[in-house]
Amino acid sequence: MANTFGKLFTLTTFGESHGEAIGGIIDGCPAGIKLNLDEIQKELNRRKPGQSKIVTQRKEPDEVQFLSGIFEGKTTGTSIGFIIKNIHQRSNDYTHIKDTYRPSHADYTYDKKYGNRDYRGGGRTSARETANWVVGGAVAKQVISSIKINAFTSSVGDIFMEKPYQDIDFNKIENNIVRCPDEDSAEKMIARIDEIKKQGDTIGGTVTCVIQNVPVGLGEPIFDKLHAQLGKAMLSINAVKGFEYGSGFCGAKMKGSEHNDIFDEDGTTKTNLSGGIQGGISNGMDIYFRVAFKPVATIMQKQQTINKDGKKVVMQGKGRHDPCVVPRAVPIVEAMAAMVLADFMLLYK
Amino acid sequence: MANTFGKLFTLTTFGESHGEAIGGIIDGCPAGIKLNLDEIQKELNRRKPGQSKIVTQRKEPDEVQFLSGIFEGKTTGTSIGFIIKNIHQRSNDYTHIKDTYRPSHADYTYDKKYGNRDYRGGGRTSARETANWVVGGAVAKQVISSIKINAFTSSVGDIFMEKPYQDIDFNKIENNIVRCPDEDSAEKMIARIDEIKKQGDTIGGTVTCVIQNVPVGLGEPIFDKLHAQLGKAMLSINAVKGFEYGSGFCGAKMKGSEHNDIFDEDGTTKTNLSGGIQGGISNGMDIYFRVAFKPVATIMQKQQTINKDGKKVVMQGKGRHDPCVVPRAVPIVEAMAAMVLADFMLLYK
Amino acid sequence: MANTFGKLFTLTTFGESHGEAIGGIIDGCPAGIKLNLDEIQKELNRRKPGQSKIVTQRKEPDEVQFLSGIFEGKTTGTSIGFIIKNIHQRSNDYTHIKDTYRPSHADYTYDKKYGNRDYRGGGRTSARETANWVVGGAVAKQVISSIKINAFTSSVGDIFMEKPYQDIDFNKIENNIVRCPDEDSAEKMIARIDEIKKQGDTIGGTVTCVIQNVPVGLGEPIFDKLHAQLGKAMLSINAVKGFEYGSGFCGAKMKGSEHNDIFDEDGTTKTNLSGGIQGGISNGMDIYFRVAFKPVATIMQKQQTINKDGKKVVMQGKGRHDPCVVPRAVPIVEAMAAMVLADFMLLYK
Amino acid sequence: MANTFGKLFTLTTFGESHGEAIGGIIDGCPAGIKLNLDEIQKELNRRKPGQSKIVTQRKEPDEVQFLSGIFEGKTTGTSIGFIIKNIHQRSNDYTHIKDTYRPSHADYTYDKKYGNRDYRGGGRTSARETANWVVGGAVAKQVISSIKINAFTSSVGDIFMEKPYQDIDFNKIENNIVRCPDEDSAEKMIARIDEIKKQGDTIGGTVTCVIQNVPVGLGEPIFDKLHAQLGKAMLSINAVKGFEYGSGFCGAKMKGSEHNDIFDEDGTTKTNLSGGIQGGISNGMDIYFRVAFKPVATIMQKQQTINKDGKKVVMQGKGRHDPCVVPRAVPIVEAMAAMVLADFMLLYK
Repeated sequence: MANTFGKLFTLTTFGESHGEAIGGIIDGCPAGIKLNLDEIQKELNRRKPGQSKIVTQRKEPDEVQFLSGIFEGKTTGTSIGFIIKNIHQRSNDYTHIKDTYRPSHADYTYDKKYGNRDYRGGGRTSARETANWVVGGAVAKQVISSIKINAFTSSVGDIFMEKPYQDIDFNKIENNIVRCPDEDSAEKMIARIDEIKKQGDTIGGTVTCVIQNVPVGLGEPIFDKLHAQLGKAMLSINAVKGFEYGSGFCGAKMKGSEHNDIFDEDGTTKTNLSGGIQGGISNGMDIYFRVAFKPVATIMQKQQTINKDGKKVVMQGKGRHDPCVVPRAVPIVEAMAAMVLADFMLLYK
Repeated sequence: MANTFGKLFTLTTFGESHGEAIGGIIDGCPAGIKLNLDEIQKELNRRKPGQSKIVTQRKEPDEVQFLSGIFEGKTTGTSIGFIIKNIHQRSNDYTHIKDTYRPSHADYTYDKKYGNRDYRGGGRTSARETANWVVGGAVAKQVISSIKINAFTSSVGDIFMEKPYQDIDFNKIENNIVRCPDEDSAEKMIARIDEIKKQGDTIGGTVTCVIQNVPVGLGEPIFDKLHAQLGKAMLSINAVKGFEYGSGFCGAKMKGSEHNDIFDEDGTTKTNLSGGIQGGISNGMDIYFRVAFKPVATIMQKQQTINKDGKKVVMQGKGRHDPCVVPRAVPIVEAMAAMVLADFMLLYK
Repeated sequence: MANTFGKLFTLTTFGESHGEAIGGIIDGCPAGIKLNLDEIQKELNRRKPGQSKIVTQRKEPDEVQFLSGIFEGKTTGTSIGFIIKNIHQRSNDYTHIKDTYRPSHADYTYDKKYGNRDYRGGGRTSARETANWVVGGAVAKQVISSIKINAFTSSVGDIFMEKPYQDIDFNKIENNIVRCPDEDSAEKMIARIDEIKKQGDTIGGTVTCVIQNVPVGLGEPIFDKLHAQLGKAMLSINAVKGFEYGSGFCGAKMKGSEHNDIFDEDGTTKTNLSGGIQGGISNGMDIYFRVAFKPVATIMQKQQTINKDGKKVVMQGKGRHDPCVVPRAVPIVEAMAAMVLADFMLLYK
Repeated sequence: MANTFGKLFTLTTFGESHGEAIGGIIDGCPAGIKLNLDEIQKELNRRKPGQSKIVTQRKEPDEVQFLSGIFEGKTTGTSIGFIIKNIHQRSNDYTHIKDTYRPSHADYTYDKKYGNRDYRGGGRTSARETANWVVGGAVAKQVISSIKINAFTSSVGDIFMEKPYQDIDFNKIENNIVRCPDEDSAEKMIARIDEIKKQGDTIGGTVTCVIQNVPVGLGEPIFDKLHAQLGKAMLSINAVKGFEYGSGFCGAKMKGSEHNDIFDEDGTTKTNLSGGIQGGISNGMDIYFRVAFKPVATIMQKQQTINKDGKKVVMQGKGRHDPCVVPRAVPIVEAMAAMVLADFMLLYK
C-alpha cells in the first residue's frame, strides 16, 4: 500500500472510518513557521459531515489533535504527528452490507486484492481518509502563504456556472452551502441536489480550482511536470473521473493560431489557455484546472448486486450519505493542490 | 530534475534533441524474459518522424542500441542501458529563435528556471525525449505480455470517431496514417490535418487507450490509485491538457442510479462506466481512458512574441514540425500505459 | 527531515520525548498476518527505562496503542498507525540546559540547522524515538517469523565476551540485565557498569547480532546490498560509531587464501567469514554483525562547555540517564535488523 | 534491482564488465556549473587497471564520454548521460569458470537469485561498475568544490600507517602507487603486496577518508544521519566488510568523560572523537572514517569448490586480478563520499 503523498513535503496517513482514530504524519515542513491551528480546524469544518442539508447528516466533530513537531506555537522542522478521533460512527449501519459487494464501490476489488474487507463504512477506502488530507493541506497552505488557492463548485449534474473565473469573487464561495460563488447558479445547484436527494439518488459535478501568485519556475520538465502532479493529486480523490487544466479537452479542438498565448513585454501572456504552466513549469500566470466527480455510488434506491458467494441479492443504501460529493470536495481539492505546491516550493528553494 | 519514472519497473532518461544521443536505463525488469528487439524497434518506428505526409518531415532513423542487461537474448535482471543516436539534426534550423521566446513553448519558463536554454530544438524539453519512453514501454509490453494495450486517435479538431471502442477492430489502427481504426473518420481526420498544414497552422486532438486482460487487484487504494498513476503518466506527455477515464467528465453530469455498474454473478459488470477501476484498483473489466492534446505550438504563420530582453519581435516557425501531434502520440500513450501496468504488475506479484 | 525507514515495508515516525505522544505508521505490512500484540509490548518492555539498576531510572510505561490496520486480530494490508503516550516526563530536569550546548550531544548542530531547539530531553533527537522503532521491528518480526534474529551485548568497555556466537545459547540473553548470554562475562560487565555509574561516568560497548534461517537471495547486487542496508540501519541508532559484518575489520588483515569460504556440496560453506552475504546477497548461512556504541554523552561530572552566546559555562548532568546504553540497545538492534529483513523479504517475494 | 544512488543528486547505472559499454545518468546536478572534464578523466585514471605493478595488469582505457546535460561547457540542469566503452576485455579468460561457483564470490548467490549468471568477469557484480561511480563522484566533487575530500590507504594486511591524519600531507597521497601519504609505511605496504602477489595470494586493507570544510548542518537527525548515509555508501563498495567514523570501535571501549568533545567558544571542539558529526548532523569539524576491505577472493592458488551441479571441482584463478584492492579503492571511496555530500548539500540549500 502507498500511504505517502509528496517528495519533500510529505503526508503519510492511516486510519479506517470505524477504527479508533485516523491520522497522519507531515514530514518536511520547514522549521520556524507560526501555525494557526484555528485555520486548520476551519478547513476541517469545511469538509466535515453534517454541515448543511445537502450533505450527509452524519455527525462527526472531526477535531484534529497535534502530537508533535510544534513547540511554542512554531514548527520545529521535525515531523508533525496528528490524529482525528472517530466519534459517533455507527458500525451497525453497515452490517447489512457485510457480505455484499456494493455496485461501483471498492468492496469487490478490495476483497479480491487483500482477501479481507473492513465492511464498516468502507474501512480504509472510505472518503473519511480525506480528512487527513485536509489537515496536510491546511498546514501546506500556511507554508506557502503567499500563494492563493481557491476551489469552488463549477457544476452539479448539467447545471454549470457559466461565468469565467475571472469574473467572480472568490470571497463568495463560502456564502452558500454548495460552494459556488455565482449566486444564481448556486441556487439552482442546491435545488437540484435537494430534488435528487428526495429521489434517493445521487448526482455528479465538477470543481474548478484557481491558484494565483505562483512564482515562475515550479515543476520539472520531464516526469514531475507541475500539472502531472496536480493531476495525480486530484485523481487520488475518491470519485474523481477526470482532470483538465488550462484549455483542457476544449484545447484538443483548437488550432495552434487560436491556442497560443502571446507574450506581453513583461513576460505575462495576453491569454492563458496554457493554464499557467508551460512545459511542466509554472509561468507566473494563474494556474487553473477542473476536476470531474462521478455521482456517489451509495443510493437509497433498491439495486441488484451480488454477495461474496456470487449470488444475486438486492440491496438498498442505509445510513447517512452524501447526495452530491462536490460541496465537501471543494476543501479537499484545495488541500491536495496546496500539498503539491508546497512540495514544489521546497524543491524550488 | 526528475528524470525517473516508476517505482519497481523504472525508466531513467537523458538526452537533448541536438546532443550526441538520447537514452535511458530500465531498472527492475525481471530476469529471464526473452526480449524481441525487432518489436521494440517497430514501436520506435511508429513514433518516428517522417513516417507519413501528415507528420513532421524530419528524418531521424531512431535506432535503439542496447548496451547491457541482456545476455544470450534474455534479460538478466540487471539494469538495461540503451542509447538512440541523434542523426540528421539541423541545429541551424533553430538559430533564428536563439533569443526569442516562442509562444506556448517552454522557452520562457525554462530560461527563468535554469538560467540557460538549449535553443536547438528545445533541448531537453523536446518531444524527442518520448523516443526513450517508447523504448521503455516496448520492453514493458513484453514483461506484461498477457495484457493488451491499444491506443488510437479518437478525434482531430472537431472530427470525432463516434463509434464506441467495443465496435471497432484494433487491428485496423495501423491501417491508416492517422491511426484511427474507423476508416471514415480516419479519412476526414487526414483531410483535416492536410488542410491545416497548408494553412501553416496546427490542430489538437484526442487519443483513446484501451487496456484489456488486466487481472483484478492492480493499484493501491490511497495515493497510488491505478488511474491516478495512468493520469500522471499521460499528463507527462508533451502537449497533454486533460485526462479522463471511464465515464470521465460525462460521468459528472450523471445520476448514481444511471452510473453504477451492476454486477453479474461472475463478478464482471453489465456496464463499465467505472472504466475497469474501482477505488483505485483494477476490477478485471477493460480499462479505458482518453487523453487531450493541444495543437502544436510551432506554427508556420507569423506571430508576435518577445525576446530575452523583453522586446517585441515577430517570428515565424521554420524547420520541420508536426501539424498534428496525435498520430505520433498513439505509440507514446501505449508506452506510458505499459510502463504503469508493468510497475503495478511487479508490485502485485 | 527524513522520518521514513524502508522501501516496501516502511516505518514513518514522529514525536518528541516531552511532547504528548510519540508514534508512527507502518506501511507495506501484508494483509492477513495474525499479530500477537503482547509480543510487541514485550519487545517495548525490553527497551524501556527503569527495567534494572544498570539503566536509567526514569519510569515510562511505554504502552503502545494501535489505531488502525488491524481488524479482528489480523493485519488488513492497510497502514498501521500507533502511538505511545509520554507519561512521567519531567521537563524541569532539563531547564538547566536550556541555553547550554551539552558536549557531544546534538544540541549545537540541531540549533544551527533548524534555528530552534526543544531542550526538553533532546526533543526529536532523544533516543526515546527508538521506542517507535522497536514497535516497527516487533511487527516486522511477526511478518518474517521464520527468520530468527538474536542480538546480545558482546562487550562493555574493555570487557569482551570471548566465546564465538556458535558456542552460546541465545535463550540465555534475557537471563541477566546486561543481556550477555555468557554468564561470566555478564557478571563482569554488570560490575563494570555499576562502578562507572558510581563515578558519575558512562561507558561504551558493542552489540552483536545473529540472523538465522535467511533464504538465499535477499539483497540487491549494486546499491541496496543487504549488508549496506543493515549497516545504514545500525548507524541510524543513536550513539553508534561503527558497523562490521562477517570478518569485519579483522578481515582487512587477512589473506585471500585464509579468508575465502570453501563450499560444501550442498552450497553451504565450511567457514563463514563472509557473514552470510556474498556480493550483497544472502547466501543462506548465518548473517552476523557487530555494532559499536560510544559512551553516553551525559555524565554526572562537571564539564566545561559553552552556551548559546558562545560563553564558557560549567555544567553537570542532572536527571536520570543510562550509564551504558548497550543493554537497552539490544532490542533496538534486533528491531532495525527485522525491518531491513522484512523489507527485503517483501521485495524478494 | 536497485541501480540508483542518492536522493536529490542521483546516479543511476548500468553495464556488465564484458558488455559493450557501462554507463550512467547523473540527475539533480544544478545548472550552470562549469565542468572540468579532464579532472573527471583523471579520477577515472586513478581507478583504472594496469596503472602500476601492484594492481591488476588488465588494460582498459576507461574513457568517459558524456552524451547530454552539458552545453557550452556548463551543466544545464538536465540529466547527464555518459558511457564508458568496454575495450580489451578477454571473455575467454572466464570460460574456465562458466559452471563453477568461485569461493567468496557472488556467483552462487547471483545464480540462485536470478536464475542466470553472466560468467564473463562477474557480469554486473564486477567491480568494473565502480568506474561509473567514480564518474558520478568526480562530477559531485565539482558541484561541492569548497569541500575537500581526501582518502588514502591506511593499512595493508597488518601494516598500519600509525600517524594520525592531522600529521600528514594529503598532497603526498599520489606520490606512491599504494596511495599511502606516509612514505615509510607506503614502502612496506608495497613490499607486502609484491610478496603476496608472488604467492598467488591476495590481501586486505583499510582506507581512511577525511572530509574538510563541511558546513554545519548537513544530515538529518533520524533516518538520514550523515554518517549512516556515508556508511551505506562505503558498504556498497565491493569487498567492504566494515565502516567506522570518529572514534569508531575504539570509542566503544571508552568512558564518557574521555570521549566527550569539549567546545571552544567559537563552537569548534578541542578534540574530535565525534568525527565531525553530532546526532547525524555535521558540526563543522573534520569528518573522518575508516573502511575495511577484505582480501580479493580470486587467488592464483588452487582451491576446492563446487560447480552448478553441486559436484566438487578444483579451480585456480586465471586472468589478471588485483593482489590488493585498496590502492584502486581510494578514488572509489572519495567518489562515494562526494556523492553523499553533494546530495546533502542540495538538500541543505
